[in-house]
Amino acid sequence: MKIVIVGGTGTIGKAVVKELSGRHEIVTVGNKSGDFQVDITNTESVVQLFKKIGNYDALICAAGNVHFGSFDTMTNELYQIGLQDKLMGQINLVLIGRNSISDRGSFTLTSGILSNDPILAGSSASMVNGAIDAFVRAAAIEMPRGIRINSISPTVLTESMPTYGAYFRGFEPVPAARAALAYSKSVEGLQTGKVYTVS
Amino acid sequence: MKIVIVGGTGTIGKAVVKELSGRHEIVTVGNKSGDFQVDITNTESVVQLFKKIGNYDALICAAGNVHFGSFDTMTNELYQIGLQDKLMGQINLVLIGRNSISDRGSFTLTSGILSNDPILAGSSASMVNGAIDAFVRAAAIEMPRGIRINSISPTVLTESMPTYGAYFRGFEPVPAARAALAYSKSVEGLQTGKVYTVS
Repeated sequence: MKIVIVGGTGTIGKAVVKELSGRHEIVTVGNKSGDFQVDITNTESVVQLFKKIGNYDALICAAGNVHFGSFDTMTNELYQIGLQDKLMGQINLVLIGRNSISDRGSFTLTSGILSNDPILAGSSASMVNGAIDAFVRAAAIEMPRGIRINSISPTVLTESMPTYGAYFRGFEPVPAARAALAYSKSVEGLQTGKVYTVS
Repeated sequence: MKIVIVGGTGTIGKAVVKELSGRHEIVTVGNKSGDFQVDITNTESVVQLFKKIGNYDALICAAGNVHFGSFDTMTNELYQIGLQDKLMGQINLVLIGRNSISDRGSFTLTSGILSNDPILAGSSASMVNGAIDAFVRAAAIEMPRGIRINSISPTVLTESMPTYGAYFRGFEPVPAARAALAYSKSVEGLQTGKVYTVS
């Protein structure tokens, strides 16, 4: 398969590339690095990306930003960051990328554990993750041509604990390599409309 | 209690007013009707609303629009309707209204069954409902002064079946009066961070 990995140079993305590259042709996409560059919040940038990539069989997105801030500091504007970037950024890839994906191709988006297991300063991440998981369940039943869509909802990564550990006390981190297995299952399996929790 | 009901003139809102008005002081808020008017998508309009209302003990929101359309017709712009109206509209009420709510007051938002039980043309509603439920779980743990927040996730209403029945074949509708009990539980009970499913 020709697999596009957006965020392919991040912590999860690198692990997914490692998991899949022995069996598939990988195209990495980053904000500033990778084989191609894209701003997922900009629909024209996404259109240009898919023109360059051409036909492909699967897309994985492990990219997208949200604002972390204690609830008393959160405003409409700060929630918009996550809504337009991690949420609609990933959905832009689906809405535009669906035109050039193969029959029975797949989209795999990334949400996260905070939708159900919230932490201090994470209300935007929780909101966005819940939206992604619900979107995937809904979009799956309307996808044409046998195209599938799933999300991966990982807990905090072992590799992220030096940076984010203080926010995730008591959470059991998982190595990115273990999260990468869920992406493999989504792409190389046949299920659709699933939220694969990795915790 | 002084209870503000945004969307108090809609199908759910009227049933909630009926359920609560015998025991509490009710302030109804609508887009064009009710005791006060507000555009929940406009933060300045929401600021003005709470100036007029003054202190209060509980806020219920049963308002908010999303675009229904088959997935192949959905675009970023059409998803923005639901994100800015039903999602951020309700959250604007919380972000601004939290300043004048009583200690141990409560916010009760409205999501819906499509987050977990999707239908044709409902991918925006699913996304938004999932976001609301996850937001409520997260915001609850950071609320100051004992303020609580819950969401109500009803299935299709009996009263809505003449209009929406064709989209909800096989769903068992509930009367708005039954959904109103969940709002009563949220406001008059003591739980927080809960998604009350009515189905």
